[in-house]
Amino acid sequence: MSEKKIYLSEAEMPQEWYNIQADLPAPLQPPLNPGTGQPIGPEDLAPIFPMELIKQEVSQERWIPIPDEIQRIYKIWRPTPLHRATELEKALKTPARIYYKNESVSPPGSHKPNTAVAQAYYNKAEGVRRIATETGAGQWGSALAFGTSLFGLECKVYMVKTSFYQKPYRKILMRAWGAHCIPSPSSETKSGQKILEEFPDTPGSLGMAISEAVEDAATHDDTKYALGSVLNHVILHQTITGLEIKKQMKIAGDSPDIIVGCVGGGSNFAGFAFPYVKDKLDGKDLQIIGVEPWACPSMSKGSFRYDFGDTAQLTPLLKMYTLGHSFVPADIHAGGLRYHGCSPLVSLLVDQGVIEPRAYHQNAIFKAALLFAETEGIIPAPETAHAIKGAIDEALKCKENNQEKCIVIGFSGHGHFDLASYDAYMDGKLKDYEHPAEKIKEALEKVPTL
Amino acid sequence: MSEKKIYLSEAEMPQEWYNIQADLPAPLQPPLNPGTGQPIGPEDLAPIFPMELIKQEVSQERWIPIPDEIQRIYKIWRPTPLHRATELEKALKTPARIYYKNESVSPPGSHKPNTAVAQAYYNKAEGVRRIATETGAGQWGSALAFGTSLFGLECKVYMVKTSFYQKPYRKILMRAWGAHCIPSPSSETKSGQKILEEFPDTPGSLGMAISEAVEDAATHDDTKYALGSVLNHVILHQTITGLEIKKQMKIAGDSPDIIVGCVGGGSNFAGFAFPYVKDKLDGKDLQIIGVEPWACPSMSKGSFRYDFGDTAQLTPLLKMYTLGHSFVPADIHAGGLRYHGCSPLVSLLVDQGVIEPRAYHQNAIFKAALLFAETEGIIPAPETAHAIKGAIDEALKCKENNQEKCIVIGFSGHGHFDLASYDAYMDGKLKDYEHPAEKIKEALEKVPTL
Repeated sequence: MSEKKIYLSEAEMPQEWYNIQADLPAPLQPPLNPGTGQPIGPEDLAPIFPMELIKQEVSQERWIPIPDEIQRIYKIWRPTPLHRATELEKALKTPARIYYKNESVSPPGSHKPNTAVAQAYYNKAEGVRRIATETGAGQWGSALAFGTSLFGLECKVYMVKTSFYQKPYRKILMRAWGAHCIPSPSSETKSGQKILEEFPDTPGSLGMAISEAVEDAATHDDTKYALGSVLNHVILHQTITGLEIKKQMKIAGDSPDIIVGCVGGGSNFAGFAFPYVKDKLDGKDLQIIGVEPWACPSMSKGSFRYDFGDTAQLTPLLKMYTLGHSFVPADIHAGGLRYHGCSPLVSLLVDQGVIEPRAYHQNAIFKAALLFAETEGIIPAPETAHAIKGAIDEALKCKENNQEKCIVIGFSGHGHFDLASYDAYMDGKLKDYEHPAEKIKEALEKVPTL
Repeated sequence: MSEKKIYLSEAEMPQEWYNIQADLPAPLQPPLNPGTGQPIGPEDLAPIFPMELIKQEVSQERWIPIPDEIQRIYKIWRPTPLHRATELEKALKTPARIYYKNESVSPPGSHKPNTAVAQAYYNKAEGVRRIATETGAGQWGSALAFGTSLFGLECKVYMVKTSFYQKPYRKILMRAWGAHCIPSPSSETKSGQKILEEFPDTPGSLGMAISEAVEDAATHDDTKYALGSVLNHVILHQTITGLEIKKQMKIAGDSPDIIVGCVGGGSNFAGFAFPYVKDKLDGKDLQIIGVEPWACPSMSKGSFRYDFGDTAQLTPLLKMYTLGHSFVPADIHAGGLRYHGCSPLVSLLVDQGVIEPRAYHQNAIFKAALLFAETEGIIPAPETAHAIKGAIDEALKCKENNQEKCIVIGFSGHGHFDLASYDAYMDGKLKDYEHPAEKIKEALEKVPTL
């Protein structure tokens, strides 16, 4: 009998990250200075990011070595297992082979520490004392708290208000790792104050929280900003997952026909898919599916154009699929997917037809999540459940067409801190929000034209 | 560099459990029928347990094969990793080598599914339709819910009232796996009703919850009872952890001088320690430390005698260290250690001087837990934190005496569902309860004399 879980030894852990900028099928448009409309340079980013991360942001090198110190910390939980979802396959009666890359085994419970640890390391190395960030559901905030705790840095987290109250345990987790977490919008920043004046009852959004964290970093000399997704260097750090999967699939003697992950800012998805994007560009027959919520369908219904990364228009303009920086998504429970935009790298590959977007309602994704929990045992994060729903649909297609395809799920995190949303689902209290066409139209009208 | 985590392949997973009854240094006293004072036989237990578990309870065979179906389910998360606690060692500046066996990687997050899955399997095999059980902090209840979900059985959980409200996420977890969980004492059983009449404001206790679950099983034809600790067959199933550690230590080229685990009913501790008890009895120089809370110090301050396993005196009499079946411990956050008694097998080995008991206050254990979280990254369950505190104290002794000892911790579970207790600790709101000498004296006076 083959093994249900495929492990790599620590010695087999990849020692370089993969930088897809070396292999793109079309040129990546640079971020622009909103004042001048000109591409921004390293000096524009220096107030908020350490120089090594700025270099990674624009690097064209295909392989970037992972410093020893980061590798040492990664080994607290990495390499992560690749599981064969035998019990789920049986329940679905599908001829498909389903695997899932289990990033939930990290101490914060998601893929996020892959970049949190790296960012904490590079900040520490350049003498930064304190990091400010935002978080949606809290996966990123708790991962950064974990990373800064290991490197002895202070950490301030602006957490989207609706998640701050929906997910109380994640903020205790951040506190246990020494971080200071407050609900956003807050009265502690000018952008927060301005939003609260205009919309005192707003549930908050990632766009708002980013504004606050960027402002915090820009206005404190000892503080830099850290972003948990969207940017190129974040995606770079996440590629360790896809690189591990490739080694693990080789051990399994298998190769994916379909890979499916959830997309918020896009870094989980990119980290897991990009090493395979290269193969697809080289001719491999492969379906790469990015799943998002119908309540926040940036790839499916957004516009591919320059827009701000945040609500208060403090960030550079990024060329990406966007619903408009003023778009505030309904407060679905997959807080990590409530972002108006999508990583420029992922957006480019959606535009090029390499990545196929798909959107689901939240009751459907919780149904899929419970089936996964009852068969494979692990309770998925609501974000991760989007990928599972995508995989289940593909596996059922395989059953219908009697196709023995190999499907790989990016299992980005567990739902231990999202159980209140499971309770609400089981109580029949979750809303499936209509596709927000009108709100998107309005928000897109506010996007600056260049 | 040696690996930080030592894995076994699934093929290396032990295929037999170890039964210490074959190797005891003194005879184990049998359970007695409280009515007759005579040893109970299989027929006395048949109404509440399936026959295969009753056979295991009294078996003298040293090795008992693990059925294939159980092995298949175990492989969802087993074998579990043995970690070298390099980061903790560094923080302590100790010459000791510290390892921890990480049972928190199971889907319910603790060692409990090792027996939950086995018990669900044997019940299913004998045609049982429904299982009733009790749970303290909820680790056992959620593990049984996980096990019964995989085998398609119904599950009813009586959860100690104080934990039911302190740890809301664990009951959602049980619900997600299809179990029905209610606070105990409840009005749904006669024993619950009687306790509520006498003590309407009781925080509940494991002893009370056991009474309710046993009554439920005894009064429903299609229902059996499952216990998550204390009994011989439960301990048998847990020995897979200690057997794995032995293989992993061989790979590490190391061997423990000290092993330390937390003791509630005793099954976590026994499962991890008993394969090493055999070595100690055979002459190996080894310290085996069982850690319990000062608020419920059965091994340290209890009496080694026959007593009931539950409050309502429904169970057979067990020869064990007990604080008296009517003892209700203070509502410390380590709910899984709030039990008046201790497994007869562990008790015998404490009495024989093979196992060394130790007791700590809860603020000290949370301090140790946070140090562990800040260094090794994982947030321990409050129960597990007792073992960590014990290990840290031993590692600091090694530092003082410049001894390079090898210490192995039984890391029984994570604290993801116990974060409210961390919040209370960090707020300075946790009480350190005095050693309850008077309450113990009173409760011991109510223990029947034979």
